[in-house]
Amino acid sequence: MAEYFQIKCQENSSRTGILHTVNGDVLTPTFVPVATQGAVKTLTPEDLKSLGASIILANTYHLYLRPGIDVIKFFKGLQNFTNWKGPILTDSGGFQGFSLKHLRKITEEGIKFKSHIDGNLHMLTPELAIEYQGIFNSDIIMPLDVCSPNKETEESSRFAMERTHRWMLRSIKVPKSEHQTLFGIIQGGFYKDLRKESCEFLTSIDVPGYGLGGFSVGESKKLMYDTVEYTTGMLPKDKPRHLLGVGSPEDLVEGVHNGIDLFDCVLPTRIARNSALFVEKGRINISRSIYKSKDVPIEDDCDCYTCLNFSVAYIHHLFKAKELLAFRLASIHNLRYIFKLMESMREAINIGEFGKFRETFWDGYTPPNEATRQIQKEKWLNSLGRR
Amino acid sequence: MAEYFQIKCQENSSRTGILHTVNGDVLTPTFVPVATQGAVKTLTPEDLKSLGASIILANTYHLYLRPGIDVIKFFKGLQNFTNWKGPILTDSGGFQGFSLKHLRKITEEGIKFKSHIDGNLHMLTPELAIEYQGIFNSDIIMPLDVCSPNKETEESSRFAMERTHRWMLRSIKVPKSEHQTLFGIIQGGFYKDLRKESCEFLTSIDVPGYGLGGFSVGESKKLMYDTVEYTTGMLPKDKPRHLLGVGSPEDLVEGVHNGIDLFDCVLPTRIARNSALFVEKGRINISRSIYKSKDVPIEDDCDCYTCLNFSVAYIHHLFKAKELLAFRLASIHNLRYIFKLMESMREAINIGEFGKFRETFWDGYTPPNEATRQIQKEKWLNSLGRR
Repeated sequence: MAEYFQIKCQENSSRTGILHTVNGDVLTPTFVPVATQGAVKTLTPEDLKSLGASIILANTYHLYLRPGIDVIKFFKGLQNFTNWKGPILTDSGGFQGFSLKHLRKITEEGIKFKSHIDGNLHMLTPELAIEYQGIFNSDIIMPLDVCSPNKETEESSRFAMERTHRWMLRSIKVPKSEHQTLFGIIQGGFYKDLRKESCEFLTSIDVPGYGLGGFSVGESKKLMYDTVEYTTGMLPKDKPRHLLGVGSPEDLVEGVHNGIDLFDCVLPTRIARNSALFVEKGRINISRSIYKSKDVPIEDDCDCYTCLNFSVAYIHHLFKAKELLAFRLASIHNLRYIFKLMESMREAINIGEFGKFRETFWDGYTPPNEATRQIQKEKWLNSLGRR
Repeated sequence: MAEYFQIKCQENSSRTGILHTVNGDVLTPTFVPVATQGAVKTLTPEDLKSLGASIILANTYHLYLRPGIDVIKFFKGLQNFTNWKGPILTDSGGFQGFSLKHLRKITEEGIKFKSHIDGNLHMLTPELAIEYQGIFNSDIIMPLDVCSPNKETEESSRFAMERTHRWMLRSIKVPKSEHQTLFGIIQGGFYKDLRKESCEFLTSIDVPGYGLGGFSVGESKKLMYDTVEYTTGMLPKDKPRHLLGVGSPEDLVEGVHNGIDLFDCVLPTRIARNSALFVEKGRINISRSIYKSKDVPIEDDCDCYTCLNFSVAYIHHLFKAKELLAFRLASIHNLRYIFKLMESMREAINIGEFGKFRETFWDGYTPPNEATRQIQKEKWLNSLGRR
C-alpha cells in the first residue's frame, strides 16, 4: 500500500504529490467535486473531466437511500452506474449524522436515520458503511465517524472522538477489495489535546490516509486554520490528508499552506446555483442589476466554457428568467475557477513559489463577510434535512 | 426575395428544400427548437448544433419583458446576446395573447398584457412587434396575430382572422432590415371557408412565407391534420410554410405529409423535464419503477449523448433524486429523436420514399392516448400565466 501516494515537491508544509488508484492517478493537492447522489449537480462526467476533475466524491447515506444498494450492486459499482471513468472517493454518511441532526439518533452500534425522503428508519453501522462502499467499488473509502458541532464541550467532543476511534477499529475488520483504501478520520472538535490524541491513535494503527473531520461546522476561519495547521503538523508526511467538507477559495489556499492534499465541498456548485460566482477578487452576485447590460465575460482571462462563450448580461438574464441553463453555466465557471486555483497552487509549489503565490492571492482576494457567511452556513445546514 | 427558398424534391404534397438566411442555411422540413427567453431550456448553442438544430425560435413577448428591448439593442441583436450563431425566427407574442388569456385584453390597437412576472401593464401593437423583432435582428419574423381558441364560433373566428389581416397590413408598413423575412400568419380556426379566405388574402399580398396559426389549441388530431391539409393545398408551392406551435412526432410526420416545411414546439423539451422520453414505439415515462435497474440505453440505436453514455437506470435515478442533470439528459435525447426524425423524412422525400416511411412510422408508433393528451394540454395552457 505504501507506494500508492508519492510526494513530488515540498515547500514548508505545502506539498504536491500523486495518488495512484486502479481507476487513474490524482495529482495533489486537488479538489474533489461532490456528486452526493451520483451526479455533480447539472454536470456530466465529460464536463467534470474538461474542468480539471480527476476524482469525484459520492455519499454513502444518500446512495443507500436512492437508488439503493441493490441497484449499484447490479451495476457492479458507481463507475459503471454513473459513467464517471475515474477514481471515486465515498463519504461514509458520518457527516449526515451531524447535518441531519433532527433526523438521527447515534448509539454505540451506529447511526439510526429517519430518511429525509420518506421518513422510514434506517440503521447505518460502521460495518455496513464499509460493506456498502465495497459494493460502490470506490477507490478511497471513509469509515463511519461522529462529527461534533461547533462549541461542543470538551467532554462531548472526547466522547464523539473515542467512539469514532472504536468505529474505526470495527471498520478495519470488514473485508475490502484490494484496490480500496480506507482512510482514518481525525475528530476532536477544536480541542488541541483531542486532535493530538486522535492523530496519535490513527498513526498508531498505521492508516494509509487521513480525513480531517469536524471542520466547517460553524467555527471561525481562524479557528479552522489554526486547528488544521496544528493537526497536520502531527501527521506522518508520506500519507495523504483530506480536509473533509471544506472548499472555499480561501480555505483551499490556507489548507494547502497547511499541508492538505485533498478537499471536497458542495460550496462551489451550491453558491453557483444561487448566482454567486468566483472571481479573482472574491465573489460576485451575478443577479445584481449592475450586470444587466455588461458585454464582458465573468472574468477576462478565464478559460471556462461559460466565459469563452457568454457575456455577464446573458448569464444575469438567465438567472433572472429562472432558466435552468444558468445553473449549469455558473457551476462550470465556479468549478473551473477552483480547478485553476488548484493547478496554480501545484505549479507554485513545484517551482518553490507557493509562499509568494499565497501572498498574491490574499492581496487580490476579499473573502465574504464572516458574519454573513456564518448566517448562510447556518441556513444551509438547517435546510439539509428538509430538501 | 424569391430565391431565399428553394424546393429540392417533391413527393405528393411533401417536399424538401433549403431556406437561405444571412446567418446560414436551413434544410427543410425541419424542427425549430424553442428558446422562449433566449435559451432552449438546459441546453447551450453548441448542444443544439450537435443535436441537429439549424435555426431556433425566440419569443418577442417574453424577451420584451426580460431582459428587455434595451439590453438586446445594446447587444445589436439576439445572436450576439445568446451566442447562437445561426438563423433565428422570432414569434410575435400573438400566441401569448391566446395562452395568457386571463392576463390580456385585445383591441384593434393591439394586445394589452398584464406582465406574468410583476403584473405591470404593457401594450404590444403590430408595429411594436415588428420594431422589436428588428432590434432582435432575427431572420424570420412574425406579425402580431389573433389566435382563436378551439370551439370558437365562426363569427368570432372570422373577427380574429380579419383583425389578423388588418394587423398584417400594418406590420408590412413598418421598416425592416433587408435580411429580415416577414411571414404572413393564416388564421380562421377550424372553419375551412375562413382558412380559404385567409390564404387568399395573404397570397394576394404576396407574402414570402406562411405561418399556419391557431393549431394545437385543444382540437383533435384528426381536425388538425384535416385543416392543415386543406390549408397547405391552397398555398403557392414555392413559399415556405411553418406550422406554428406544433411538434409531437406524429404531428411532424403528418405535417410533412401535408407539405409543412417548418415546425416549432416546446413539447419535446417540456415533456423531457417531466421524464417523458421519445422512443420508436411512442413515449415512455422514465420515472416508472420498471426502469430502476435497467442497464440499457433509452434506445439501442440512438446516437445521442445520453444514450451513448448512460443507462436507463441512471436516468431513472436522476429523476427520482431530482438531480438537475436529468432535465438536460432527457432534453438531449428528445431533441435528438426529433432531429433524427426530420433527417429521416428529408432523406425519404429525397429518394421518393416518404409514403413508405410514413407507413413504417405508423406501424411502429403509438401516440399518447387522446383523452390524456387533451387533459395534459389543458393543464399546461392553464399553467402558462402562473409560472
